[in-house]
Amino acid sequence: MIFQKEIQLQAYPRGFHIITHSILQSIPSLPDAGLLNVFIKHTSAGLSINENADPDVLHDYELYFNKIVPENLNGLRHTIEGPDDMPAHIKSSLVGSSISIPITEGKLNLGTWQGIYLCEFRNSGGPRKLILTIYS
Amino acid sequence: MIFQKEIQLQAYPRGFHIITHSILQSIPSLPDAGLLNVFIKHTSAGLSINENADPDVLHDYELYFNKIVPENLNGLRHTIEGPDDMPAHIKSSLVGSSISIPITEGKLNLGTWQGIYLCEFRNSGGPRKLILTIYS
Amino acid sequence: MIFQKEIQLQAYPRGFHIITHSILQSIPSLPDAGLLNVFIKHTSAGLSINENADPDVLHDYELYFNKIVPENLNGLRHTIEGPDDMPAHIKSSLVGSSISIPITEGKLNLGTWQGIYLCEFRNSGGPRKLILTIYS
Repeated sequence: MIFQKEIQLQAYPRGFHIITHSILQSIPSLPDAGLLNVFIKHTSAGLSINENADPDVLHDYELYFNKIVPENLNGLRHTIEGPDDMPAHIKSSLVGSSISIPITEGKLNLGTWQGIYLCEFRNSGGPRKLILTIYS
Repeated sequence: MIFQKEIQLQAYPRGFHIITHSILQSIPSLPDAGLLNVFIKHTSAGLSINENADPDVLHDYELYFNKIVPENLNGLRHTIEGPDDMPAHIKSSLVGSSISIPITEGKLNLGTWQGIYLCEFRNSGGPRKLILTIYS
Repeated sequence: MIFQKEIQLQAYPRGFHIITHSILQSIPSLPDAGLLNVFIKHTSAGLSINENADPDVLHDYELYFNKIVPENLNGLRHTIEGPDDMPAHIKSSLVGSSISIPITEGKLNLGTWQGIYLCEFRNSGGPRKLILTIYS
């Protein structure tokens, strides 16, 4: 069986944000066993799974990704939409545009410290659309 | 229900290439709701989802990945297959070897600007094999 | 149909390790066609698919990821669990926390040179838990 739903997240500022709660409250109930796929319909934001407890981790992610994908890289051609645009595309391919999470006994089978991240790479990305697909 | 098919892409030159059309023309019809998984059976090429309109983005990806995974990195041991080989392995783990895309109302539910990328990291990678798996 | 199982890997030292055999011996039999998802319930280790033959590749991965995510990055705040902790989180998002592999004719449809990697990014990560989910 397949359950599928599109949701729209509020606009988040550039950075990493935990959205596990937004995903969970969009789904009425989870099956006994299955898999949840979350897909983001954008090319300058991404999804990841990481530490859900310490806000410093979110800060450090933003610091790191800005360092590893600098905005002033020599030779970039796709610059018409602003200096944050091409780096945002690259960052989104580094983290990926979808995540899959097992569902077990009616719950997301995440580890204790795992949460779902929205990785917003644009300065003003606006609301982002996600597709939730559940197999059971 | 599961539909599965192996396809072989033509040999592409090193770089990033949009292959959405090759995927779509390999599948007779898509279900009302489901998920498409595309898997690449190689360790020196990868798959990603990104911007489908401006060829400059493809250029900038190649520029960036060559910068972040240089061919002359000090200390590399796996060099027998040429200087592009070990960097190709690393790049393929950075982008990943499979992508998943929701299917909604008989179509791939991609965002307006999203396309499927073949990331060819070898100088002469040759034809690449993909496995398409559709759940519905 | 869905098959799901949690397994615990032995504690591995920091580095990249091929665990294809551990996955396969945990599954009694594979369906004719389907997909295997392997998910790691941790935020400082990851999963990837890459070269399965030359141990030098595993060495080179460790070399590269240490270079690209250094332990002494200026400005990191999440440092209380040791200098290897925040880099481990970042590395895990770069490789990802799950992989999907097609199943064809009762076997994992991996390419000749593909193996499943446990990417252990902590100095002493301990045993790691994986969830195996098979759709058929």
